[in-house]
Amino acid sequence: MDWIAFALFLAAAAAAGATGAMFPTGAWLARLDKPSWMPPNRAFPVVWTTLYLLMALAGGRIVHAGGGGVALAFWALQIALNTLWTPVFFGARRMRAGLWVIGALWMAVLGFVLAAWPVDRVAALLFLPSLAWVSVAAALNASLLRRNPDERPLRLSDL
Amino acid sequence: MDWIAFALFLAAAAAAGATGAMFPTGAWLARLDKPSWMPPNRAFPVVWTTLYLLMALAGGRIVHAGGGGVALAFWALQIALNTLWTPVFFGARRMRAGLWVIGALWMAVLGFVLAAWPVDRVAALLFLPSLAWVSVAAALNASLLRRNPDERPLRLSDL
Repeated sequence: MDWIAFALFLAAAAAAGATGAMFPTGAWLARLDKPSWMPPNRAFPVVWTTLYLLMALAGGRIVHAGGGGVALAFWALQIALNTLWTPVFFGARRMRAGLWVIGALWMAVLGFVLAAWPVDRVAALLFLPSLAWVSVAAALNASLLRRNPDERPLRLSDL
Repeated sequence: MDWIAFALFLAAAAAAGATGAMFPTGAWLARLDKPSWMPPNRAFPVVWTTLYLLMALAGGRIVHAGGGGVALAFWALQIALNTLWTPVFFGARRMRAGLWVIGALWMAVLGFVLAAWPVDRVAALLFLPSLAWVSVAAALNASLLRRNPDERPLRLSDL
């Protein structure tokens, strides 16, 4: 484990996590038509905090192992898309654009798993909970988009 | 140059750049008191596109060189903070939080330069334009905060 890299990856994950505090779900999510299988609101910060820790551990292991440059490029891509999703969905309220972002995120997470596997199997496995949760989140995004066809993006530039 | 990694880094930069389209500056920036030295609006997308390309080239070079894991962790950190800044500043209109984010971004970019230098000097140099521009952007954020003390964050959760 490379602890300097771990700390940097954890800081990157904290930047992604900060979007949850900056763009609270608030009254908007409350009034949307939601599927019955949607996890309770309080689950999200707990799950994401755990996933961020696992991601940082995976990154630190890949740096320590060496030779995992492409896996680390996938790591950078998935954290950028992760940081993007919350402001797009809960800030601009663009559910359709959010679905594209989270679809790309799902592929980036899968890309990390595949690229990390030959470098450090534990690191690859540490991203499987992310892959599972992003699958749920993507299904949730799709369901909210389908159930609320009359919702329009927030016209931030008019405010 | 590792072209697969380059493409992944460019995709991560595109995610950061998408915030510019998702959170347009609009009427809000127009009505703020701005410093005379602020670059014209049209400069920003041109400059950022150039910087994103240089960043991706730097990342691809580090992956090709090998042994630059900590530099790549800084790369991931700087793209997460870059993706975070626009929604915080132009979405939530949190100028003070934005200053913290861009200060952290400045340090992450400097961290990349220092960590990349012993691995691939060209890659380190490719980030110097980013360091210069983030310095300008941070000074601009600080100036807008100081000149517009009565501006309040957008209460997105009330909308």
